[in-house]
Amino acid sequence: MDHESYMRRALALARRAEGQTSPNPMVGAVIVKDGTIVSEGWHHRAGTPHAEIHALNQAGDLAKGATLYVTLEPCSHYGRTGPCVQAVVQAGISRVVAAMTDPNPLVAGQGFKFLRENGVEVIEGVLAAEAAQLNEVFIKWITTKMPFGILKTAMSLDGKIATYTGHSQWITGLPARTRVHEWRSKYDAVLVGVGTVLADNPELTVRLITNGKNPLRIVADSLARTPLNAKVITDGKAPTIIAVAPEAPADRIAALKAGGAEVVQVARGPDGIDLRSLFAYLGSRSITSVLIEGGGAIGASALAANVVDKVHWFIAPKIIGGRSAPGPIGGMGAEFLEQAVQLEDTTIEYIGDDLLVTAYVKKREGRDVYRTCGRIGPS
Amino acid sequence: MDHESYMRRALALARRAEGQTSPNPMVGAVIVKDGTIVSEGWHHRAGTPHAEIHALNQAGDLAKGATLYVTLEPCSHYGRTGPCVQAVVQAGISRVVAAMTDPNPLVAGQGFKFLRENGVEVIEGVLAAEAAQLNEVFIKWITTKMPFGILKTAMSLDGKIATYTGHSQWITGLPARTRVHEWRSKYDAVLVGVGTVLADNPELTVRLITNGKNPLRIVADSLARTPLNAKVITDGKAPTIIAVAPEAPADRIAALKAGGAEVVQVARGPDGIDLRSLFAYLGSRSITSVLIEGGGAIGASALAANVVDKVHWFIAPKIIGGRSAPGPIGGMGAEFLEQAVQLEDTTIEYIGDDLLVTAYVKKREGRDVYRTCGRIGPS
Repeated sequence: MDHESYMRRALALARRAEGQTSPNPMVGAVIVKDGTIVSEGWHHRAGTPHAEIHALNQAGDLAKGATLYVTLEPCSHYGRTGPCVQAVVQAGISRVVAAMTDPNPLVAGQGFKFLRENGVEVIEGVLAAEAAQLNEVFIKWITTKMPFGILKTAMSLDGKIATYTGHSQWITGLPARTRVHEWRSKYDAVLVGVGTVLADNPELTVRLITNGKNPLRIVADSLARTPLNAKVITDGKAPTIIAVAPEAPADRIAALKAGGAEVVQVARGPDGIDLRSLFAYLGSRSITSVLIEGGGAIGASALAANVVDKVHWFIAPKIIGGRSAPGPIGGMGAEFLEQAVQLEDTTIEYIGDDLLVTAYVKKREGRDVYRTCGRIGPS
Repeated sequence: MDHESYMRRALALARRAEGQTSPNPMVGAVIVKDGTIVSEGWHHRAGTPHAEIHALNQAGDLAKGATLYVTLEPCSHYGRTGPCVQAVVQAGISRVVAAMTDPNPLVAGQGFKFLRENGVEVIEGVLAAEAAQLNEVFIKWITTKMPFGILKTAMSLDGKIATYTGHSQWITGLPARTRVHEWRSKYDAVLVGVGTVLADNPELTVRLITNGKNPLRIVADSLARTPLNAKVITDGKAPTIIAVAPEAPADRIAALKAGGAEVVQVARGPDGIDLRSLFAYLGSRSITSVLIEGGGAIGASALAANVVDKVHWFIAPKIIGGRSAPGPIGGMGAEFLEQAVQLEDTTIEYIGDDLLVTAYVKKREGRDVYRTCGRIGPS
């Protein structure tokens, strides 16, 4: 086996803790001696030992003179678990093969430096792209302190999320809906607009898969209109944040708080609350990812606020039709095609009978703030 | 090589005449003797020799005792070119391997029967599904006398065919637009609504590929509003039919005729002209396929009239947004999801940066007439 094969194994180990390590990255490690894997480890949860420590402990004396494959640069700082590089050196590891540098700009490269200064050979960049994709959420958050935004929608082939009468259950099949529950379990938080709460009264919990972790639920609700008997308030299945604008009525805020919700005041944006401020606030609370699940209004606002990094777009093999039937992105929309949000790195897969298009929002120079008002966003 | 390999070769030969055989099917033939291909042929154009005849002529005496692979049951009737089965028997072919029976119900099986009665061994059904797909247009037309309808559209990922201001050039990239010109060249006719003529003044000709055949141009124009200076009237690059309703003004009809267009009166449908009547008329004129290229109105009408067999749906990797930006299918649309047009046999491919979703309209029992008025269709 070569470097890439061992690293692929380490990446697979890292992924075992998907959805469980936030705000930490997923990390996997494999120790190889004389062409044999002698131990493996992965980071399970924030506050517990790092992947390298698990692997070193399991290897014991076999670590002496061995090669450590690890998906991320070993840490050099005293966090909650002590610096891994010291443990690596002490265990007698002679070579470290890493997929990528620590994306945290404050410590990037320091782990490798310490290892080299202590006589450990270091090879960097093996399967770097795969490792970066694995931790796309962590990389966004650690480098910007903004959560990674995932916009999810489900529409018919002709771009409708409901009929003209509002009938929308279900556009997609059970496999697609199950995939959404997997995402809820994987990401830290789920965001909807109050319109979705008023129309559908969703739980926003994980039910279609077993052992899923319910996400933090967030409702963008500038005027605090969330009903006190909404499931997200009453069911107690996960914490709920109601994000309101400064002008939200004090009595509504008090009632929501009494009902058990956390109410957070954020600035007003061009349409409802300022999603960019909300995301910054969530990032400061170590919420590293937000799955945006609302209807066309919140989708348009999120794109306008430039908080969307990735889109997951289900397309059902049916045609609903209708000039007035709603589409997945509302607001005013682009005036000219050149102002449309460009996507890249598109991939497609079948989920049951439905298609799933996944893509990334193309970053534009100097546009890391609100897009021009009144284009994609609110009308 | 086995039966399937030779048949695959015959199918590839048949496809060489794509777009050139209407109203005849594409047919390919291979003659094999002692494990060697001794001759090949394909049907070039209606009125010219059939594939089998080309192959038999090329094989000469080598046909004696050989196997003929042919993608369609050899004809047994005296058409413009004489029955192929007689030529097959006379040439001394000892075995015929065919992909499928002649779909024409009036003659299906008669060719095989004649061959067997004359001592030729017949094997049927080799790569039958591939052969049926190759000639999906011919099969639809010969069995129903209605043209095969292909609905083509191009939208952003969020289901918009233009911005809210009407800006629409171009949603897709050059490779996608080139593919549309290939289809125009492949199919017999192209249909748009008069709204598209008024808004875009399209040529509807084949320009992006070389040696393409321009399709017959058809404008659904109930009130004969097509401007006399529209390109489809003045450019003389292909014949144009203006399909009008009975109440179209006589002076407009006369002016369009004087301008060089053919004007055809068809019944009125729930919204504009009755597309089902138009298709029946076109079928009676041996137009075997119609590429529907118009905007959301004609798309909705065509789906309501149940004249769409296949959809070609380009999806550009961009988000336009906008509640009022137009989508690919207008009209009133389905009231409940159960009334949506169901698609099947979906395939996806990348065309440049764009996605192309191709699917077939699922047939519904007893619905081979207008769908319930006011559902998908007109409002």
